[in-house]
Order: sequence, then structure tokens, then C-alpha cells
Amino acid sequence: VLEIAFHPDRAGDVPFARQLADHLAALIGSGRLAPGVKLPASREAAASLRLGRNTVSAAYDMLAARGLIAARVGQGTFVAPPSAAASLPGGAAAAVTPREFAWGGLFARHPPAGVLPPAITRSETHGVFPFDFRGGRIEARALPLADLRWAFAAPFRTRTRLQELAAHHDPRGWPPLRREIARHLASRGLACEPDDVMVVGGIQQAIDLAARVLVDPGDAVAIEQPGYFGAALAFAGQGAEVLGVEVDDEGLRTERLARILRLRRVKLLYVTPATQSPTGAVMSRARRDALLALADEHQVPIFEDDYDSDLRYAGPLLPALKAADPAGQIVYAGTFSKVLFPGLRVGYVVAARPLLERMVAARWVGDFGSPVVEQAALATLLGTRGLDRHLRAVRRLYAARLQALLAALRRNMPDGVRWTEPRGGHQVWVTLPHGIDVDRLQQAARTRGVAYTRGELFHLDGRGAEHVSLAFSALEPAVIAEGVARLGALVRQHLPTSRPAGRHSSSGVAGRTQKGRAHGTR
Amino acid sequence: VLEIAFHPDRAGDVPFARQLADHLAALIGSGRLAPGVKLPASREAAASLRLGRNTVSAAYDMLAARGLIAARVGQGTFVAPPSAAASLPGGAAAAVTPREFAWGGLFARHPPAGVLPPAITRSETHGVFPFDFRGGRIEARALPLADLRWAFAAPFRTRTRLQELAAHHDPRGWPPLRREIARHLASRGLACEPDDVMVVGGIQQAIDLAARVLVDPGDAVAIEQPGYFGAALAFAGQGAEVLGVEVDDEGLRTERLARILRLRRVKLLYVTPATQSPTGAVMSRARRDALLALADEHQVPIFEDDYDSDLRYAGPLLPALKAADPAGQIVYAGTFSKVLFPGLRVGYVVAARPLLERMVAARWVGDFGSPVVEQAALATLLGTRGLDRHLRAVRRLYAARLQALLAALRRNMPDGVRWTEPRGGHQVWVTLPHGIDVDRLQQAARTRGVAYTRGELFHLDGRGAEHVSLAFSALEPAVIAEGVARLGALVRQHLPTSRPAGRHSSSGVAGRTQKGRAHGTR
Repeated sequence: VLEIAFHPDRAGDVPFARQLADHLAALIGSGRLAPGVKLPASREAAASLRLGRNTVSAAYDMLAARGLIAARVGQGTFVAPPSAAASLPGGAAAAVTPREFAWGGLFARHPPAGVLPPAITRSETHGVFPFDFRGGRIEARALPLADLRWAFAAPFRTRTRLQELAAHHDPRGWPPLRREIARHLASRGLACEPDDVMVVGGIQQAIDLAARVLVDPGDAVAIEQPGYFGAALAFAGQGAEVLGVEVDDEGLRTERLARILRLRRVKLLYVTPATQSPTGAVMSRARRDALLALADEHQVPIFEDDYDSDLRYAGPLLPALKAADPAGQIVYAGTFSKVLFPGLRVGYVVAARPLLERMVAARWVGDFGSPVVEQAALATLLGTRGLDRHLRAVRRLYAARLQALLAALRRNMPDGVRWTEPRGGHQVWVTLPHGIDVDRLQQAARTRGVAYTRGELFHLDGRGAEHVSLAFSALEPAVIAEGVARLGALVRQHLPTSRPAGRHSSSGVAGRTQKGRAHGTR
Repeated sequence: VLEIAFHPDRAGDVPFARQLADHLAALIGSGRLAPGVKLPASREAAASLRLGRNTVSAAYDMLAARGLIAARVGQGTFVAPPSAAASLPGGAAAAVTPREFAWGGLFARHPPAGVLPPAITRSETHGVFPFDFRGGRIEARALPLADLRWAFAAPFRTRTRLQELAAHHDPRGWPPLRREIARHLASRGLACEPDDVMVVGGIQQAIDLAARVLVDPGDAVAIEQPGYFGAALAFAGQGAEVLGVEVDDEGLRTERLARILRLRRVKLLYVTPATQSPTGAVMSRARRDALLALADEHQVPIFEDDYDSDLRYAGPLLPALKAADPAGQIVYAGTFSKVLFPGLRVGYVVAARPLLERMVAARWVGDFGSPVVEQAALATLLGTRGLDRHLRAVRRLYAARLQALLAALRRNMPDGVRWTEPRGGHQVWVTLPHGIDVDRLQQAARTRGVAYTRGELFHLDGRGAEHVSLAFSALEPAVIAEGVARLGALVRQHLPTSRPAGRHSSSGVAGRTQKGRAHGTR
């Protein structure tokens, strides 16, 4: 009996029958299924492929319609001779590209990502807009050009220097950079040794490595809702069931988490305590204590994403959760990409040795480690205090832009629109009135040159359409003012007419704030 | 009933009972299992943990011996009060670190790498030896220092340039570099568009991404034997069953592959046709044709690792397999790290769109993409023909070193030692006479300042101890001559005395050659 290897793409939106038909058509087109070969009966095929019989029958029908297979009475179904397909009127067989390899049937059942959300793909992230509030952009004019040029040329200044770099092989990262990172982390309350640090290609890689090392398909992982989409994708990419835990203006709602932990065994908790992603809430001390107590009680490890803590403009910056972690239960991740530029791709992980060793091994298998030139350059920039100088400068710059954005929102937004007043980061989280047509609003905004990130990106379940994320750090105050003026006018135009206007009507709190942040690549 | 979450580490060599005992001890130490808590009976615990009842009983016995738990007649087994453990003579409870988080029970069942082979970990790769024939090292003195310094500083020469780079977000890579790569690949017979190319952090990442996108646990993947250990680890890391296919001096033995393909559905074939890793064999035309025919017949995709094809010193360089791939069945990967330096971490993939799109999505989830500065620098180096000039220089340099190594082997090795005569790459594959004590030889060699890579690294099954890989490209001819003289004398001393000397006795072919290559990071 002919055996057909076929692994349907369960992530995509192509029906299985269609996928199976295309797969078989490609096999026939390539000659692998030659004319005259008998196909298994639909019942047999359904059993061996673990598909419904109706699915197989539908696929066979499609192939018969294309003239690629034919039934013979009392004998079964056979691959048709090539002439049969070619002689069909109207080129019905044109859908078959004879020499195209049938990748569709070969994809893994649990790939890291089948289909990325639309907000990440080109349709949403491309295009040039004069008033571009989408995340992941920074003010390149503020970058320390001369310091960076010096730092990146330094590895090539002498052969001795380069010889040393060229011989570097440690997947944990370039030792001088790990020393500088350990020193830098004192500002977050972390006392760690260079050997507690692994250099990674940004926080996203830290999350992915933790997921690969800790998560089996079917394991539950809890993240904030709304929350960082990259974390949700990385955990889901390992087959995790991702559970959302609500946030408010004190960060993660730990009483909700407690309920989940009573009901479910959770493998990992992912949190952004310094600047909640995307609302920007600073996690309160009470919530921090509750989180740590819950994690201890249920012996669940915590992944602390501390992505934006270097950009604090107002209010106290609490130490990292990891600063009080004698048991080694917290995986801590930070990055330099947020304060320099996203394409830098240098971040770091601090974790207990048993876990760190696993993550290092996974890193070796994945890509051997980070490029050494940028590691050496960053070690130079940190060692010469170039990063500290830059941080002081961008904190002033971004703080002014944040104030410009908040002022523009107050000036231009109609009643019923709410927004957060973040103390750090790159972004403000705006909540539109109920009932507004968000698709038409976005369309109109783009026509007027205004782009932003839609709130669905930060939700696991397609909700969040009434939210908008406005990133401010790459925009001049005048651009911010004009962009928000245009957006405000459009929101006013698109307000649902049936609904009485009432400022902050849904919460009843004037100027109610959560604290916003930038999204974008880590 | 108390529920214990415990995921034994199946990759390591710690018995499950020991792991379970340690896990429970940590839970008790941390207070999660408080004194007086009743443990499930061993039968229940065995069922819920999916372990043998003997395993659970053994773990309970260990804990009872430590005084951490105790049985009560007719009632069951309970966590003992702290005093009971503390009062034990001889500090038997000292193995418990009270506040250490129990990571051991949380690791994923299919991590990318549980334990890396010893030849990759520090004990084998560290240490300084005057005659260091281990792989992955290059001659930094041959690097184009001024060109590299210029190229890495270029992104920071003007703000406009940096602004453009800082806004880069495409996980496929920096467009100017993809254009240069597409141009560069014409020399390998590949006609591709920049959009067919994805930039990756070296070939290892290309392999890992292909594995993540294509391989489900239990799938079979075929690789060469001996073969590249990084590929074996990446496929195994996705849960693949890795099948070895023998190689000889014409590369992969396709008749062996044919037998496997008749018996097994294979998800992917991994090959190094230009310079087989580690023997250096150039795959013959006949074998290439046979491989392509088999892949077509069985509709199995091919991963072509073309890592060292830029370093060819003698003989013709056949086009890449991918050069004749109208169906898009071949995933092609190359790298710049081999000809520049390993820490550069820039490679590339060319693949059919359906597969490439999946790999790009997986890359996004994994780390968002390669750092942009090194991509821009490499685009500059390629665009200004700096890489071509460098290639011409290192080909001459490495060819001379290869000749020095081969001459030294002829001068110094006793009868019965065979080696390959590679046409490219960084490395020669040496076969020692049967019966030699390879552990004592390695120990003696290190004492005399000579280090090399053992053959087991390139085998899936622990075989290959009679092979030694000698990398030559980082060593001056005089160092090569002296190192091989020392090694030759030691091999002579360690020859098995019971065995009559007879030159090339095992193959009977004088100077029988396969074609060697460098291993090391991709």
C-alpha cells in the first residue's frame, strides 16, 4: 500500500483538504506519484494520515476535478495519465506547478511561529508616515556617534586585539563585556559575578532560550494581559498554553494570578515589573511581595523582563525583583538595544547556574553565541562611561518628548479617551471610547499621515482593539503635537453618534493613569 | 492529595531516584513541603509521576535516610520536623541547600541540548598549547585590519547613515547585504534574488532554524558519518532521530542512503558536498546525481552546508548542489565566519519561499534577526571587493600551511597511520592504527604541548576514537612541522606492541586520501 507522508499546517488558515490536495498534486506533478499508481481508499488514507474521512474525500474530489486522479469501477482510485490533466479545458491543471517541491506537507507541527501576527508583518510595519507613532524606533540623532565609531573600530586597532577576539569561543559571551554588565547591574540592585551573566542577542532571545529549556508542549506559562507579544509568541512557539493575567495601574493583578495558580500547574511566570509592557504600570511594592510569595508557595520560576528600566524620567525606580532572590528562582533579562538602537541586538541574562548552564548549551546549539565585535564595542562603551553619558542625555530628551505627547493628548483628545502617564520607556497607552470603529479610524489616520500600533497586538485573544499604543521617543515635539492634533480630530469624527459624550466615563477617574511604555523589538 | 511536579532530566546521567530525592529534598528545604505534610504512597506517586514504583521507593528511602521524611504506622509517610533532620549525626542533611530553587525538576523533556559533548565543553577546548591543532581558530594576522576597521566604523560616519540603520527591522537581514550575498553566490552557480536570501548568525543558526521549522520529535534526519557535530546536536535538539550515512573519499555513500530511504521516511538530508565535514572528501559528480535522484524520488528535502567552499586550494570546485534545483528542494547555507573569523557570526540561507518564510518567522520569534552593524560592515567589505582581496591572500597562505602539514605527516608518522589530502578547508583527518590507546596518546600529546580534536566528536555513536582532526590554518609552517614531529614520535611510542608494523596496512593503499577539512564553529 502506498504510504503518503503528509503533515498538515495546523497554524495557517488553509483547510486540510486543500492542503492535502495540493500536496498530492505536487507529488503527482513531480512524478513521485506516477500515472497508474493506486491511491489508498479514503478510509485507509484517513486512518494513516489521522485526518477525517471527509477531509480525504474532499481532497480526492478536488484532484479528480483537476483531472489528476480517476476512479476505476471495482478497482479503486488511480493517478491519471498526464494527457488526462493536460487535455482538460480551461487549464484546470494550471494550479499544479509540476516541478515545485511540496514543502507544505513537511512543516513541523510545533514550529516556533507558523504565522506572525499582522501587526508584525510588513503590511502593518512598513510604509512611511510623517507622524509615525509605531514602536521600535529611536532618535538616531541622539546617538553618541563618535563614541560608537571609536568603540566599533577598537577591535581592529591592533592585531593583538583582533587575535584575542578572533580566538573567542565562549557561548556565554565576551568576558570583558560580562564584567561590565555585572558592574552595570549594581544600579538595579543586583550583586552578580561575570559568570552569572550570559550575553544574548536581545531579550527576545533570552525569552526564547528560557522557553526552549523549560517549556514542553502543553505546559502552562502565565504572562501579563495586555502584555508583550514577543514573549507570548516565544512561549507559544514551544507549544505552551499561554495564560493571560490582567494588569492594572499597579501592574500584574496578583489576586488573579493566585486563582490561576490554585487551579493550574504553571511552568513559568513572565513579568515586566519596572515598566509594564505595554501599559507602563510600575509594579507596586505590595504586588511585588505578593508575586514573590506566590512564586515561592507554588515553586514557579519567574522571568523578569527589565527591558526599559534604564529609561526612567520620574518617580523612584525600585530595584529589580531579582535583587531579592536568594533561592535563584528568578531569570533576569535586560538589554542595551532599547537605549542605543534596536539593531544592536545585545542583551543579557542573569540566572541560577543550573538554569544558566542549560540556556548556554541551548544557545550553543542555536547559534554558538553573539557576534564578538559588537560585544567588544559595547564593553568599550561601558568601560569608558560612554553609555552613562548617553543615558543622561536621552533621559532628558525622551522626558521632554513624553511631556509633549501628554500635553498634546490633553489638548486634542475628546471626552471619553483615556491614556496612561508613564514614568519611563518609549510609549503611552491610549484607550478609545467604546463603540468607535477602529478599522476606519486607522484607515483615516494613515491617510492623514498618522501611524500607530493597535492594541490587539498586546492581547492573546484578539481583544484590545479599543487601545492604541503611541511611541514618542523618535519624534520631535512639534511632530508629536501635530500628529496628535490630527489623530484627536479623527477620533472626534469617528466617535459613535449613539453614545453620549462623557469624559473618562468608563472609569470615572479624571486623568486616570497607568504608566505607558514603548513596545517594539527587545 | 499532594501533587508533586517533577520532570526528570532524561539526558543526564543522574538516576531518576536520586533526582526525585533531590527535588523533594529541595521542596522540603524551601518549606514548600512543610513538616507534617503527607506524601503520596509510592504506588500513587509512581503513577502520577510516570516513574517506576521502585524509583519512587528508592527516592523515599534516600529521604528517610537523610531524616527528611518518616513513616507512621498505619498512616503513611510524612515530612519530618526540622529537628529530626538537624539532629542526625554526621550532618546527613547537609546535602539539602534549604533556599536553593529546585530547577532540576522543571527542565523541558526535549531541550535543544541537555549536555554538550565533552569535546565542546571547556575541558577539551580550553588550555593553551604551543602546538594547537584544534579547530575553529584562524590566522588573525592575515585579516585585513584596515578594511575591517573602515567597514565597522562606516555605519557611524554620518547621522544619516546611522538613522537608516537604526530604523532597520527586517528579520531577513539588511537589504544591501542581501544584495551583495546574492551577487557573491554567482560564484557558486546560484542565480538568486536578494529576497531569496536570509541573513543568519552563521550556518549553525541556519541548521537550527531548519530543524525548528521542519522537524518534529521522532522524525528521522539523515546526516553524514563521520559528520558535523553541530548539525547532529541541532537536529537531536528538536527531538529528531539522527541517522548516520557513511562517507568515503567520494563523499556520502548514496547506496547506503538509498537503503535507508527504502526502509524509513526521512524528513531531511544534511550534506556537506563541497568539502565533507570532517573528512574533506569532495562529493563526486556521480554521487551528486545519485543524491539528487534519491531526494527527488523520495521527495526528501536537502540541507546543503557549503561552509568552506570559498577556501579551495587545488582541483576544480563544482557548483553548489543548489545550482541545479528548479523545484526548490534544497536549503542552501553559507558563511563568512570561516574566511574572516568565527566570532563574526554572519551566514546566509537561500531557500524556496514557503520554507524561507517559515524560517524568517522562526528567526523573528528566536531573536528578531542579526545585529545590523556587522551586516552593514560586511556589505561594505563585499561591495568594496575587500573580501575578494582577502580570499586571494588567505587561499595562498592556507594552501602553504596545508602543504607543510602533509609534508610533516609524511616525514613523521609511522607505518599504519593514514590521512586525507584535502583540496580545501582548514583541516586534515588522520586515522591511527588499530589498537592504539587514544586516551594515553592524547594525555602524552598535551604534556608535550600538542592539542588536537578527537574523532569521536564527529560520530553519533561514540565511535571514531582512532581518528584525529588536525587543523592547520592558524599555525605557522614551523609550528606545524614541530607539532607533527612531536605527535609522530608519540604515536610511535604508543603503537600496540602485539601488532606487526605495516604501512597503511588496514587499507592497503599507499597514501590513501580522503579530503580533509576544518571543523569548528560555523
